[in-house]
Amino acid sequence: MRADFDALAQIGATGNGGVDRPSLSPAHLEARAWLRSCIIDSGLEFRSDGAGNHSAYLPCGSQGAPILLLGSHLDSVPSGGRFDGPLGVLAALEALRVVKEQGLSLPFHLEAIDFTDEEGTLVGELGSGALAGTLALKALDSPRGGRQALEAGLQRAGLTEAGIFSAQRDPTGLAGYLELHIEQGLRLMNVQAQIGIVTSIVGISSYRLAFLGQAGHAGTTPMEDRHDAGLAASVFNLAARELVMREFPGCVANVGQIHFSPGAFNIIPARADLALEFRAPDAPILDRLEGALLARARDAAQQFRLELIYEQLDRVLPAEMAPVFQAAIREAAGQLGLKAIPLASFAGHDAQALAPVCPVGMLFVPSVGGISHSPRELTHWEDCVYGANTLLNAVIRLGGKNIKTE
Amino acid sequence: MRADFDALAQIGATGNGGVDRPSLSPAHLEARAWLRSCIIDSGLEFRSDGAGNHSAYLPCGSQGAPILLLGSHLDSVPSGGRFDGPLGVLAALEALRVVKEQGLSLPFHLEAIDFTDEEGTLVGELGSGALAGTLALKALDSPRGGRQALEAGLQRAGLTEAGIFSAQRDPTGLAGYLELHIEQGLRLMNVQAQIGIVTSIVGISSYRLAFLGQAGHAGTTPMEDRHDAGLAASVFNLAARELVMREFPGCVANVGQIHFSPGAFNIIPARADLALEFRAPDAPILDRLEGALLARARDAAQQFRLELIYEQLDRVLPAEMAPVFQAAIREAAGQLGLKAIPLASFAGHDAQALAPVCPVGMLFVPSVGGISHSPRELTHWEDCVYGANTLLNAVIRLGGKNIKTE
Repeated sequence: MRADFDALAQIGATGNGGVDRPSLSPAHLEARAWLRSCIIDSGLEFRSDGAGNHSAYLPCGSQGAPILLLGSHLDSVPSGGRFDGPLGVLAALEALRVVKEQGLSLPFHLEAIDFTDEEGTLVGELGSGALAGTLALKALDSPRGGRQALEAGLQRAGLTEAGIFSAQRDPTGLAGYLELHIEQGLRLMNVQAQIGIVTSIVGISSYRLAFLGQAGHAGTTPMEDRHDAGLAASVFNLAARELVMREFPGCVANVGQIHFSPGAFNIIPARADLALEFRAPDAPILDRLEGALLARARDAAQQFRLELIYEQLDRVLPAEMAPVFQAAIREAAGQLGLKAIPLASFAGHDAQALAPVCPVGMLFVPSVGGISHSPRELTHWEDCVYGANTLLNAVIRLGGKNIKTE
Repeated sequence: MRADFDALAQIGATGNGGVDRPSLSPAHLEARAWLRSCIIDSGLEFRSDGAGNHSAYLPCGSQGAPILLLGSHLDSVPSGGRFDGPLGVLAALEALRVVKEQGLSLPFHLEAIDFTDEEGTLVGELGSGALAGTLALKALDSPRGGRQALEAGLQRAGLTEAGIFSAQRDPTGLAGYLELHIEQGLRLMNVQAQIGIVTSIVGISSYRLAFLGQAGHAGTTPMEDRHDAGLAASVFNLAARELVMREFPGCVANVGQIHFSPGAFNIIPARADLALEFRAPDAPILDRLEGALLARARDAAQQFRLELIYEQLDRVLPAEMAPVFQAAIREAAGQLGLKAIPLASFAGHDAQALAPVCPVGMLFVPSVGGISHSPRELTHWEDCVYGANTLLNAVIRLGGKNIKTE
């Protein structure tokens, strides 16, 4: 597994410890070609589908058994790290190898899957959404990365939009989905735990907001007569932070962009555009946070006598991790003598797309400095091994449980 | 003059009553080509210089006489109005036409000049500063609008940086500079006066500020651990306003642009760039305001544990209008039965660049609603005519005065 990890980290390497493998980029496709060889060399069956998802498949004895999906993704954000995604794919592949080599008997087929475009440089959770049937048609019409990037990527990979939807599977054939991932935060490090048992993945909502004021001469318009859209944007940015910190513990909000128009030194800003994203651990809190943030935006507009317009761009519902997976991870870690703590995931993952159709679970390993989406992303190798062993052990334990009813 | 005004307002028209003619943009160059034809059609001599300034020239009988410059500018802010600049150029041109047609004898040559880049989309008072020799070399190195915009504009206009400085004139050849402009404020409207006799022009200082934080995952980085550059920018924007309103009456400040980088929904802003401009009626107050604003910026950086970098872009000192011009305007308006009041200008004008080298004067006409730098900018046509008549009358009166000694 270490050799696999090091070989994979060379593909799309940026020379500063990171990788640049946006989904369906040449580097990402090279990583997938490498994975395919690796799967075949391991004596496992290689599978791929219309959404470009790549898998290693290991059947159990019983033909009518469901499939337990294990996996993650090989794509990265632009100038990302080596661990976010690849660790989960390689640990899944390693689990299949061990089960095969040891001739272990399980009541489900195993499939180690590399999902297409988890990171969203094109659409976000594209492969997992297609497989689950939760991918919206309109997500392809106006994708996060733009139509041009999506079309170019699909063409490079030999995929089509119609083909993507053909990847949908019958949920009755799925036993569940289990993923190992880096934490991308500091909670495990802070309490010196090796394993995070994910309890839920937060919901994410994003909005474009604009405050509309009135342009004016920055010299001759008295301060008290201005309709300065920039002031409302500034008030809202600070109010959003205060709201979350005071009234919504366990939630986060980010104003990732503010831009003023017309944007000249000597013109009072007529318009301020904001990119807002916020995350909450469950749907009712996400709703309340959304309402409170929009109320703060309206207050800011009113304070400076401005108009407010807004548009929701995306909403990913929070996903609860199945208790049976949480228990299997807890027991597996315990048996290995590892300290495991429950935590919520503040990052989005493919498990969110799959949660509506099958039980899902995730386990985290520590991220040094909490850093991710950066070449400085690092998980100590011993923690990677602890994570992979816990994943394998949890899979074996799941063989003794009734996943769909427990 | 009305026909000229209407024809000119079509060039770069935005369809909502405004014009978009940033300096040396294609629309601005088209307006200048139109002015050139207009000058030639009027039987006046056309002149231009290395800074792109365009003039109509009308010599008086005496060859060694100095030149009285009349004028303003044809460039606009992005999405600006029809009156700010063009009114002064066309009234100056009209004055030359009348003096020529009537065969009036004056002790100075007349030159109706259209100065390059008064508004500062490139540098600010570029043409007038070059003519006066008050343009700083470093103003071209790091111009307000960026090097790329300056280089592209110069290339479009067939100008060079070396050529700009060749526009400098010997001050002994200048009798003075007189300009008609819209008030861009409400003071004339408020007292129902037709003419404003400008007493001084406020000083203006502009800065680029940047707060430097740290990018991070907007989901997994706890609110209290962020180094969000956008928050400091927001705090500073509000603090600057409060400072001016509470402690600097008679001054104004504007944060005309805020822009976050990298600027994604799910990334904490690593950098926030701000465009700051502030104005004060005299130099000591301008200095005090500058110190207080920079202290507020440092406080904002410290509050969020960020780095602050800044650069002064431009500083235009306050300028006193010559008493001889103020008197000529007062007498001219009085003779025409117009109500004229003295006032300071909160807007910058080319007269500031010229004040160090020759006597300067300005007269204002009312702006409806005080609006300018906006498509809704409006001066009633009868007020435009009052202004042009007062300008002409003042020029004739100046013929009877000794401008440099009175």
